[in-house]
Amino acid sequence: MNYLERLISASEKFNSIICMGLDPVLEDIPVEGEPGDAIYIFYETILDKMVQTGTLPGAVKPNYAFYAQYGLEGIDALQRIIRLYKNEGLPVILDVKRGDIGKTAAAYAREAFDFFGADAVTLSPYLGYDSVSPFISGYPDRGYYILTRTSNKSASDFQDLGTGTGTLFMRVAEKILEWYHPGIGSVVGATYPEELSRVSSLFTSSGKDVPLLIPGIGAQGGDLDETLRILDTFPDRRIHRINSSSGINYAYKKLGNLNYADAAVTALKELNSATGN
Amino acid sequence: MNYLERLISASEKFNSIICMGLDPVLEDIPVEGEPGDAIYIFYETILDKMVQTGTLPGAVKPNYAFYAQYGLEGIDALQRIIRLYKNEGLPVILDVKRGDIGKTAAAYAREAFDFFGADAVTLSPYLGYDSVSPFISGYPDRGYYILTRTSNKSASDFQDLGTGTGTLFMRVAEKILEWYHPGIGSVVGATYPEELSRVSSLFTSSGKDVPLLIPGIGAQGGDLDETLRILDTFPDRRIHRINSSSGINYAYKKLGNLNYADAAVTALKELNSATGN
Repeated sequence: MNYLERLISASEKFNSIICMGLDPVLEDIPVEGEPGDAIYIFYETILDKMVQTGTLPGAVKPNYAFYAQYGLEGIDALQRIIRLYKNEGLPVILDVKRGDIGKTAAAYAREAFDFFGADAVTLSPYLGYDSVSPFISGYPDRGYYILTRTSNKSASDFQDLGTGTGTLFMRVAEKILEWYHPGIGSVVGATYPEELSRVSSLFTSSGKDVPLLIPGIGAQGGDLDETLRILDTFPDRRIHRINSSSGINYAYKKLGNLNYADAAVTALKELNSATGN
Repeated sequence: MNYLERLISASEKFNSIICMGLDPVLEDIPVEGEPGDAIYIFYETILDKMVQTGTLPGAVKPNYAFYAQYGLEGIDALQRIIRLYKNEGLPVILDVKRGDIGKTAAAYAREAFDFFGADAVTLSPYLGYDSVSPFISGYPDRGYYILTRTSNKSASDFQDLGTGTGTLFMRVAEKILEWYHPGIGSVVGATYPEELSRVSSLFTSSGKDVPLLIPGIGAQGGDLDETLRILDTFPDRRIHRINSSSGINYAYKKLGNLNYADAAVTALKELNSATGN
C-alpha cells in the first residue's frame, strides 16, 4: 500500500478524517513520573480507551519538538508511542518540519522512516527540491507534507509575498504539483480559509491527489465548517486530514467530570461526528 | 558574554574564523564499534589532537541529522560531543534548521540550549518571526542563524523569486535586520558569491553586527578567496565563520600517509592559514 492508499484505508476503517496531534505538554498531563514515562502512559491510556470504545482518528501526528525537549527519554517515548499507534493501524505523521539537503536530508529520512517507523513526515520548502527528493527517492511509499500556507500569524512574513505570478505559498503549491509523486502532500492552515481555498482549487483542477494536512482548528481559531465546505470541493476527501491536538489531548480541562482518556475520546467522537463521520 | 562576544573571543583565542562541521558519515569513520561509540571516539580523538597541537577552529557545527539517523545512541553521542567541544571553549552551533511556532519553537529552544547546551542554532525562516522569537526571548545570550541564501542548487526554487522589492532571500536578510537582536545571524552559501555579496552589503550598510555562517567551500565548490574578499568588506570579520565539514573530518582520505586525526589537524591548519589566521 502506498501512503494515499493507507490514508483512504484508515479513513474507512476508523470512519474519520481527523488527525489527532500527539503533543505532550507535561504540566497538562495528569500522570506522575519521569517525563518520558508520564508521556508514554498518557498516550497509551488514551489509545486503550479509543480502541475499547471504537472511537479512533484517521491518523495521528506527534510533533517532534514536544518530545525532543526532554532529551533521550523524550525521543525514546516518541519511538515507543509511534510503535503503539502504528500497531493499531493508524497512519503516523511525524511532524518534524525538516529542511536540509542531499546527504543530510537522506539522514533525516532514515531517522523518520527507519528509526521512528513513521508513515509520513512534514517538510519545510525553503531549500527547494533538494530537501524533498531524498525522502521520495529513498522511501517512495511514504507521505511527505510540504509546508505551504501555515496557520500562524507571522506566516505572512514570507509566505504571502507576491512573486510576480502569485504569492510565495502558491508557488510552493505549484512546485508540489511539479514534484508530484503519490504521497506528496501539503500543509495548509484552517486559520486562513481564503488561502486554503486557493490552494485547494489549484490541486483539484490539477487532477492530482495531494493529501492536505490542515492544522489550526480549535485553539488557533480556524473554523471547522468552513474547512469542511472547502474539503467538499475535492472528489475524495478521505485522503485529507484535519488536525486537532490540544482539543483532544487536554479535553479533560473543559470536560471536568471525565478523566483525561474519557474526555479525549468524547472530544474525538464529537469531531468525528462534526466532520460527517 | 553574549554570543557575538563569544565569537570574537573564540576567534582571538584560537586564531581562526573557520567553523568545523562535525558531520559523522559512518562509512568514512575508521573506528570500530557501535555507531554512537565510533562517532564519539572519532571526534574525541580529533579534538585531543587539535588541543595537543594548538590548532583549533573558531567554532564547531554538528549537523543534527547525521546523529539522529542512529536514534538514541546518535543523540546521546551528539550530546556528549557537544559537551566535549564546549569544555575546550569552542562555540557550538547546532545545525538543526528548526522552523516551528509558538510553544513548539519554545520546546525546540529548550532542546538546543538546555538539553544539548549549544551556543547557537540554525533556523528556517519560512514560518516567519513566530519561529524565531521564542529562541531570542527565552535565551537572549545565544546565537540564531537564519537560513538566508543556502548553498544548494535548488535554493533558487524559492529563495531567488522576485518579490517586487527584491528576491525572497534579500527579504529574509531585511527581516533579520528588522528582528535584530545581538546574536541573530545569517546563513549564506559561498557557492553563490554574488548573493553572498549582496547580503553582506545590506548588513555592512546597516551598521548592525550580523554574524555570517558560510557553508559551501570545498566539496560544494565555493571559492575561499572570493569569500574572504567579501568578508574583508566588514569592519570586524571575527564574528563571521566559514564552514568546512568533510574537508577537515575526512582529510585522511586525501592525505593518505596520515591518520585521521593528524590529517584533520593538517587540513584545519591549512584553512586557518589560508584565511589569514
